[in-house]
Parts: sequence; C-alpha cells; structure tokens
Amino acid sequence: MKRLDTRSADFEAGFASLLDTRETESGRVDAPVTAILAAVREKGDEAVCDYTARFDRLELTPERMRITADEMMAAVALVPGDQLAALDVAATRIERFHRAQMPQDMRFTDEEGLTLGQRWTSLDAVGLYVPGGKAAYPSSVLMNALPARVAGVARLAMCVPTPGGVLNPLVLAAARRAGVDEIYRIGGAQAVGAMAFGTKTIAPVDRIVGPGNAWVAEAKRQVFGRVGIDSIAGPSEVVVVADGKNDPRLVALDLLAQAEHDELAQSILITDDAAFADRVAGAVEQELKTLSRAEIARASWRDFGAVIVVSSWSGAADLINRIAPEHLEIMLDDPAALFAQVRHAGAAFLGRFCPEAVGDYVGGPNHVLPTSRTARFASGLSVYDFLKRTTFIEGDRTALERVGPAGVVLATAEGLEAHALSISARLASGHNPE
Amino acid sequence: MKRLDTRSADFEAGFASLLDTRETESGRVDAPVTAILAAVREKGDEAVCDYTARFDRLELTPERMRITADEMMAAVALVPGDQLAALDVAATRIERFHRAQMPQDMRFTDEEGLTLGQRWTSLDAVGLYVPGGKAAYPSSVLMNALPARVAGVARLAMCVPTPGGVLNPLVLAAARRAGVDEIYRIGGAQAVGAMAFGTKTIAPVDRIVGPGNAWVAEAKRQVFGRVGIDSIAGPSEVVVVADGKNDPRLVALDLLAQAEHDELAQSILITDDAAFADRVAGAVEQELKTLSRAEIARASWRDFGAVIVVSSWSGAADLINRIAPEHLEIMLDDPAALFAQVRHAGAAFLGRFCPEAVGDYVGGPNHVLPTSRTARFASGLSVYDFLKRTTFIEGDRTALERVGPAGVVLATAEGLEAHALSISARLASGHNPE
Repeated sequence: MKRLDTRSADFEAGFASLLDTRETESGRVDAPVTAILAAVREKGDEAVCDYTARFDRLELTPERMRITADEMMAAVALVPGDQLAALDVAATRIERFHRAQMPQDMRFTDEEGLTLGQRWTSLDAVGLYVPGGKAAYPSSVLMNALPARVAGVARLAMCVPTPGGVLNPLVLAAARRAGVDEIYRIGGAQAVGAMAFGTKTIAPVDRIVGPGNAWVAEAKRQVFGRVGIDSIAGPSEVVVVADGKNDPRLVALDLLAQAEHDELAQSILITDDAAFADRVAGAVEQELKTLSRAEIARASWRDFGAVIVVSSWSGAADLINRIAPEHLEIMLDDPAALFAQVRHAGAAFLGRFCPEAVGDYVGGPNHVLPTSRTARFASGLSVYDFLKRTTFIEGDRTALERVGPAGVVLATAEGLEAHALSISARLASGHNPE
Repeated sequence: MKRLDTRSADFEAGFASLLDTRETESGRVDAPVTAILAAVREKGDEAVCDYTARFDRLELTPERMRITADEMMAAVALVPGDQLAALDVAATRIERFHRAQMPQDMRFTDEEGLTLGQRWTSLDAVGLYVPGGKAAYPSSVLMNALPARVAGVARLAMCVPTPGGVLNPLVLAAARRAGVDEIYRIGGAQAVGAMAFGTKTIAPVDRIVGPGNAWVAEAKRQVFGRVGIDSIAGPSEVVVVADGKNDPRLVALDLLAQAEHDELAQSILITDDAAFADRVAGAVEQELKTLSRAEIARASWRDFGAVIVVSSWSGAADLINRIAPEHLEIMLDDPAALFAQVRHAGAAFLGRFCPEAVGDYVGGPNHVLPTSRTARFASGLSVYDFLKRTTFIEGDRTALERVGPAGVVLATAEGLEAHALSISARLASGHNPE
C-alpha cells in the first residue's frame, strides 16, 4: 500500500505513478484468435465443436450445443430458495432503474419549415458472453441481459463454456430470471466467432456484450465492425472518500471488497484525517487475517492500494477527477457537495450506508462500468448499449428553398457536383409533385 | 449496376450477394502504425516532426506545429463571402439540432428509500482528426466539432496534415466557426499518437474523432482503450425509395451524389415501378456524361449500384432493414408510413424535396453516420459521443436494511466475502453516524 499526503513535496510524483502502475500486458493471443475466428467462419458448427473438445474437454455435436429446457429446469432446481429470491430482488430493481433510463424520441419543426428529429430503436439480436467456472457471476448475467430486455431486444443468445460439461445452476437461474432461454454451452473465441458470423445452429447477432478472458476480449476486438461490442474491461478500482467520523472497519471492508476481485484491482482511500487513515490501514490488516479471499486481496492492497491524506475536500475532487475511478464512495456528512465537483466517475455511492456492494447487486444501476481511468470518456452499460438512433429530416419545397442554397454553395466548394445538383435541380424542377 | 426483382426466383441469392460484396480489405498497416505510435510515445514532438518531414514533405519544429492566429486569419481571408455565409447557416442549424439532442439528468427515490440516478458530464478534451488534401471536407469539421462544443467539451484540439505546407482555407474557416483555435499541422498515425499519448507541445485528449485514411484508422484502433474513438467509417451508402411519380433525373442525381464520393460507395434504388426504374437508370447514364466526378461515380454505380423492384412497400421495409443503410430517402406521398416500419437506418430523408445532400450540409442532424450495415447496432455522431454518465446511489440505514440482505445472499453465493461483509457489518454496526 502506498501512502501519500497532498502536503508532501513528492506528492505529485507519487500520485502520477499511482495512475500509471496498472497497465496490463496484452495476452498476445492475436494470432491464435485470428485462426479460430477464420475456422469458425469457414466451418461453422464443426469448428466450434472441435475447439470445445480441445479447450473445454467436452465432446459436443451441433444438436447438443444448446442447453435444453429440461437441463435448465434441473439446474435451477438445485438453487436454494433464498438465492432465487435474492436474484429476483436484484432483477426487479435493475429492471426498474433501466426502464427509467429509456430515452425519448425527439421531433420538432424549425422556423425554416424543416421537421427534424431522432428515433430510438432497439437492436434485433444480442449475444451475451458469460465466463465459465469461477469467473461466472450470476449478477453479471442480470446486469448484461436485463438492459437489453428493457431496451426491447427481441433475441438474446447466451454462450457460457461448461468445462467438463458442468453447468452453473445460479448462472442458469439468473438467465432464466432475465428471460434468456437460448443458451449454448460453448465459450472462448469460438463462441464469439459463432455469435458474430453465425453457424448453422447459432444465428448471428448484432452486438456481443459480457466479460471474458484475454481470448474472448481479443476475439471481440477482431469481430468489431461486423458486430458491435461493449468496452473491454480492465482491472477494477474504487476510491473511498471518508472522514474521521466513519467506522474504520467498514471503510476497510469496502476497500477489501474491491481488492478481493483480482490481484490487479485497486483500492484508494482519500481522507482528511491522518490518524483515521492509520486506523483504516490497521483494520485492513485485521480483516485480511480471516477473509476467505485474503491472498488475492492482500496482493492487490500491497501492490496497488493507496491511502491519500488531503488538506481539503475540494482538493479531493481534483484527485478523483484525475483518477476517474470506476467506483466512488463518498462517506461524508454532505456527500452531495463533493459529488457536485466530481466530473469523472463510473458510479458513485453516496453516504455512510451505501457501500459499493449495494451497486454490485441490488442497487439498480448497472455494475458493468468503465475501468482503468476510462470514465474520462466512457459510461457504464445501459439501455443505450442496446438502442441506436435514426435521425430524420422532412421538408417540402418551401423549406428546401430556404436552406438549400447554402448546401449548394458548400457542396460546390467541396467539389461534389451531384450533391449540389440534387438540391438545385429540385428547386428548378416544375415537374416534381408536392 | 445490379437489377433485382422481388418476384424473381433468384432474388434472394442476388440480394444476399448485394449485402456481401463490399467487404473492404484491411490495409495491413498494423506493424508500421505500431512502430509510429511507439516512437511518438517515446520521443514525443521529435518523432512527430520526423514523420511529418517524411510523409508530408514538411520540415517542422515543435514551435511551428501549431497554426498561428495570424495564419488562420490570413487563410480565412481567402474564403469567398458566400462560402463563409453558407458555413454559418450550416453551423447554426447543426448547433440547434444538437442542442435539442442534449439529454437530461435523472434522479428518483424508490419505495425502499434509495435515491437513484444518473448525471451526464462532458469529456474534458477531444481531438479532432481532419484529413488533408482532397479528402478534407469543411462540412465534416462542423459535424465533428460542433456536437463536442454543444456537449460542453472545454478543449478541442484539431490535427490536419498540410502536405507541402499548404493550408486549406475553408477547413480553417469551418474550424474558426466551430470555435476551434488549437490546430496542429500534422496528420497520420503520428497525429493520432500525439493526441492519445500527449507530447511536450500537445496535451493528451480523452477521445479522438474524425475520418482518416487506413493509417489513421489503424492508429485509432490501437490507441482505443487509452482514449475513446469514434467508429471506423467504411464506404458510404444510400437507399432511395421512390414511386413512379418522381422525376427520374432527381432520383438519379441522389443516387449519383452517393456514388461520386468513392468507388466503393453503394447506391440502391427501391421502387414498385419497373418502367420508372428504367427511366432512372437511363437518367443516371445521362448525368454521367457531364458529371465532374463521373469516373468515380460510374465505377461505384457499375460495381455496387442496384435497382430493386418490389411488389409492395412493406416488402421494401423488410429489405431496408436487412440493408440497414447509412442514408435512406423515402420519396413517396406518405413517407412517414414506410418510415414507421424501418428499424435500421443511420439517417432518413423524407419527402420528395429532401435529398440526402440537405443532411450532408445544412439539415442539422449529423452527417457522420454508421456505414456498411452497422446501423443495425450503431448510431450517427451526436452529443452522446462527447458525454458520459455517472450513475449514483444514495441511501441511509433504513434503505440498506431493506435492500442489503439480498445483496449479502448474492455476494455470499458468488464467494465474495468482503462484499457481503461490507453490507452486513454496516447493518450490525451501532457506531456509524447517520
């Protein structure tokens, strides 16, 4: 853990290195992924089954790719009732928030007589990638699938690898709650290829979302353009802003909740109270003694954790904006005052009773958020990821008479004669019916 | 030009090949672009000047990179008054449309007592790439810069190569009208690298937009993640839907306005009137005799043009949705009826007096649009490209008591103990102040 004080002479150097330390190495899987995608494109189901046998130790036929309704039912029956109920609480709240997020169409007629506007429509088909094994989070299934459903996407196909053939009941329960019943037991670059290009068994989709390993991320990069993709997530981070009135243990747990995800995760405490910072650091060590994922959390806190002591809260806002954190907790008496100065953050958690974990599961806003400082220019997953806009212009001869001539001048200046003629010939024509 | 009739037995095969024909070859410039970006990142201004000397035949020093206010003034003084006036008409209308497009923040408190919402903020700094020479369209400078300005982006930096040192007056006039005064006379992958990584002279930006050649596109791909980028534009296309009441010459000009952009551009006529289709095809040939860019337009029409005769307008809607065209013109008595059935299109132009060229220059909506069938999942450039959302959750102990337990169940099921504890310990703690 790095300790910084804004009043120290070496603060700038230390803070700059804090922002720079987590560059991840690219996995260098470009070439094998290119080969897998080419094979899937050319040979379809056959290639998908071959790679599944090789990578997931699972012999498949095209007929067996899709998880059946019976298998789904049998798996979901294994999920304890309290987990099903909790999934439903989460899903209901996520749906409600994302419904509130739906944008409105726009239309107006201006003084020149042109009617202008934009119309939102949903994507036809979305592919949802869900990692297999330990990296499979049922909550992420809800967070990826429900905004698509709320946006009105008619077809939602899901791919989840099942190494050795083992299904994850809670993942399937989350899929069922989100209304996803087209699920294929395939993963990796071959699943991304199948969804992007389509095979005999799997119809192609228009956009692929969901987290995955380096192979999946590279495959998404390579199919981008043919289909849409979501952003490639890097390691996760949290900034917790807390004054000395907080319980140090609660702050420590919030920092550790980030750190337990991944050795590359980053947890940063910003406080105005140096003694409180010490107490939090102590509480972190205390919790690490018993935490089930202590090994991961300890490595993350040791390598990327930081405690920053500031002399003012507005100074804190400057630091937050430079970090542009994925998650921001503000545990102060008046969190709104500081939040008003924050320009760059993926999601904010305001008050002493709103840990990030609320947002990870049951808050309602999406937990798929811009990582690694990309909140400077990117947003969390939302209904916008499953909608697109068509703008439109409608006008009659009078409107064209008013705005057309400027268009003719510009088209001519750009050397595009047919552009200019398409306007000027209309204005000259007596033939054209209104 | 390909001629198709929906009533023919071979229609499906012909239509499918129409959708597939324009796959562009990637330029295979990955490796040289990687080298340029690495050099710019390491050596900064020095590398940028070296590449500018090599590729643009222009000897630069860091001090000379930026175009001065005096140069700007001298260049703009060369622009004829009618062109400056036309730029202003276009800019005013583009600003007005994009102001209407600005989204609202959202905030509500639910029955469990959690306050949820999202807040839009603008990016801090945007880089605008403008191609040099013939590919420089002043209208594109307006279309890229003005939405950023309307969104509230404080810093807008522009890079435009000036091969041999020659400035483009109308491009600079458009920049001035858009309020862009930080302009560097550099281009290519080196300009993209300078904006992404920053140099001593050029501060880094958060997102890079604007069209460019294969080197620029590949450089944008490679810096994506560090900064945001816009979509990589492919060749442009238009679908014109017209009944037999239209003037065939006007329809021909609209098809040619697309075709004159690029040999890879695609113009498609959909009509219910086979005889009218013949008249349009004849008018195209007639116009090609005199059009200044006839060589380009003829190649585009020959290789990628198409005329499709349909037996019903609702059949036309199905075809439009499969094409997902960048531009759609509907020249019918009731264009709204057909437009209501269209799900996928970048921009629509409704009525007999609204050629696409209106939208290219003076309509108001953006002319940077999703090409090559990507309107299935993508939208045109807009204020949304220069904004991002921060979601927030605010709650007190009572709200946490209501929604927290479901979060504890899910966190525990996912094996994330610190997540669960961050909620349960808060609920158990008596210490924490409200």
